[in-house]
Amino acid sequence: MSSRTAGQVIKCKAAVAWEAGKPLVIEEVEVAPPQKMEVRIKILYTSLCRTDVYFWEAKAQDSVFPRILGHEAAGIVESVGEGVTELAAGDHVLPVFTGECRECAHCKSEESNMCSLLRINTERGVMISDQKSRFSINGKPIYHFLGTSTFSEYTVLHVGCVAKINPEAPLDKVCVLSCLGATLNVAKPFKGSSVAIFGLGAVGLGAAEGARLAGASRVICVDLNPARFEEAKKFGLTEFVNPKDYDKPIQEVIAEMTDGGVDRSVECTGNVNAMISAFECVHDGWGVAVVVGIHHKDAVFKTHPLNFLNERTLKGTFFGNYKARSDLPSVVEMYMKKELEVEKFITHTVTFAEINKAFELMLKGEGLRCVVRME
Amino acid sequence: MSSRTAGQVIKCKAAVAWEAGKPLVIEEVEVAPPQKMEVRIKILYTSLCRTDVYFWEAKAQDSVFPRILGHEAAGIVESVGEGVTELAAGDHVLPVFTGECRECAHCKSEESNMCSLLRINTERGVMISDQKSRFSINGKPIYHFLGTSTFSEYTVLHVGCVAKINPEAPLDKVCVLSCLGATLNVAKPFKGSSVAIFGLGAVGLGAAEGARLAGASRVICVDLNPARFEEAKKFGLTEFVNPKDYDKPIQEVIAEMTDGGVDRSVECTGNVNAMISAFECVHDGWGVAVVVGIHHKDAVFKTHPLNFLNERTLKGTFFGNYKARSDLPSVVEMYMKKELEVEKFITHTVTFAEINKAFELMLKGEGLRCVVRME
Repeated sequence: MSSRTAGQVIKCKAAVAWEAGKPLVIEEVEVAPPQKMEVRIKILYTSLCRTDVYFWEAKAQDSVFPRILGHEAAGIVESVGEGVTELAAGDHVLPVFTGECRECAHCKSEESNMCSLLRINTERGVMISDQKSRFSINGKPIYHFLGTSTFSEYTVLHVGCVAKINPEAPLDKVCVLSCLGATLNVAKPFKGSSVAIFGLGAVGLGAAEGARLAGASRVICVDLNPARFEEAKKFGLTEFVNPKDYDKPIQEVIAEMTDGGVDRSVECTGNVNAMISAFECVHDGWGVAVVVGIHHKDAVFKTHPLNFLNERTLKGTFFGNYKARSDLPSVVEMYMKKELEVEKFITHTVTFAEINKAFELMLKGEGLRCVVRME
Repeated sequence: MSSRTAGQVIKCKAAVAWEAGKPLVIEEVEVAPPQKMEVRIKILYTSLCRTDVYFWEAKAQDSVFPRILGHEAAGIVESVGEGVTELAAGDHVLPVFTGECRECAHCKSEESNMCSLLRINTERGVMISDQKSRFSINGKPIYHFLGTSTFSEYTVLHVGCVAKINPEAPLDKVCVLSCLGATLNVAKPFKGSSVAIFGLGAVGLGAAEGARLAGASRVICVDLNPARFEEAKKFGLTEFVNPKDYDKPIQEVIAEMTDGGVDRSVECTGNVNAMISAFECVHDGWGVAVVVGIHHKDAVFKTHPLNFLNERTLKGTFFGNYKARSDLPSVVEMYMKKELEVEKFITHTVTFAEINKAFELMLKGEGLRCVVRME
């Protein structure tokens, strides 16, 4: 399938973040054709993730403006640049912010997904090949975000940031797997194990869902907001602890509930005290704590060395250690085989014109994922 | 083989630590017969490890006095208590301070060696079964140390703290494997990997030897004392870095030497700043840092959460994660097959009467292991 617009500049609508914390503005932008090893995608559905809000607020972190945010989405390839052989116009794809060049030491390592070329880079607002943006308004550049910029009807990505998926998968559902799918893989519990999840946002609930799929016998949910427990019950979760209800550290409470500690814990809050609790609540001898939350740049993790010496492990994961381009298609297949329910994560839907509503919901802590229909 | 002394109190010599930091005194002590699930051993060789000195000095840690220290040794079973079926008088054995009951959750876990019943307990000075000491002078108890108390011609241990070894193994050599043997297993590098070792004492050199045996391509040694590098050269080590020679953090120096960081690091100093450097010097994406050193009770490990999020792992190990009673015999076999050289760790030998000389050498930082001949 070839495209009439291939090789041409496309004029389309995009939601531009002109400055930190100000509502996005739907603008007509020009999207340049994909260059060597790049792909231009028509976005059909995108959804809002906390990371977009974080870099839009730009409170704890520098950001670049004007910028087109968005990284959780689904779309169809419009055209491909020179050298792109494994994708063609018409392919159904998910954009991925954790790219995979397949040639660096990280891509060749079985353990890492932190591609040297295409790893997450929140500061870069341009394409790698020529350090230029593909978006412009009246000739002035509008910057990219995470190499994805999905809050636009058309966007340009490096081919390593595009996962080709089953064309029968409903894009209005699997769009959330583009980012959220990785959360399924973060807990990595063994069958019959106990898992504690810190933070019941979409990431925490995804981690809980992944733990359930992997055969965890207990999932203990920790959150400061009891309203979150109501949401979590819809996921079949039944054990909740609120640190505010106890006058001792929550790690001690969890140790008492579990005869010494949980087998695995996952920190999804981005709060460093939760990270310390998540680490200290795992069982000595074999417990593993995993950090997923993105922390404030001045945060400091502190613990007594003995907590490590007693054979506890602390590790972090980006994107659930998935190699996104290679692994996301199989997550979509899990949904197609009904092993995985995606619908329960999608609590709201808005039109593209209403995209600022999605930000409001996220800021109010309401719901999990708000899907934005581009058409 | 049965023993004439079985069931009797044995009078023998032991080196008693009467108070913190004062020279040991060779005394005649009475050693009660082993009770249910206990074993009495004739110690032939023992050696001094930093941990003995640490609890003898009792500066950073409480200790119990009067006490018979010592945990690295080799001996022969003199008699066994009720219920002991797998050991008999005459068996050659190594005492182990990290015991193994083989019935608790830790012993049944493949990942842990921190037996609930017999894990290291530095405060306990008595046997588990009746909370009494088996050592006495004129009816007054002299306390045990680490469940081993090998600075005595005879000592009593729980059967779970005794590893039966090949009777052909020379006890004057393999005695050091009783504790030091575990260091071989701490680095756990993969073939071709780079390893950084922090601290070139016997533990660090053991970890380096283990890394070499496992096929590490590079072993980078870090120590503040250049005299240690001379000792390390005898182990075939060639890459040394002294943090004092640089005006930037040693983790940055190591990252530059290794194109982003080492694959594995091992912290053997017990200094929390070295622990931070050891963690931060591993490569993102796949690096694993292992803590072996015992840290001051007020020490605090600090790092930015992002160092974890970038897929670095930090974990601790007690006794190299060996299940000592089960695994030590095979370490002895490695020595018997000449895969492992033990002699280079033994830099000094003294008689039992000269045991305080071993403490002096350790305090001066001279040599690695001083073996004490009991006879």
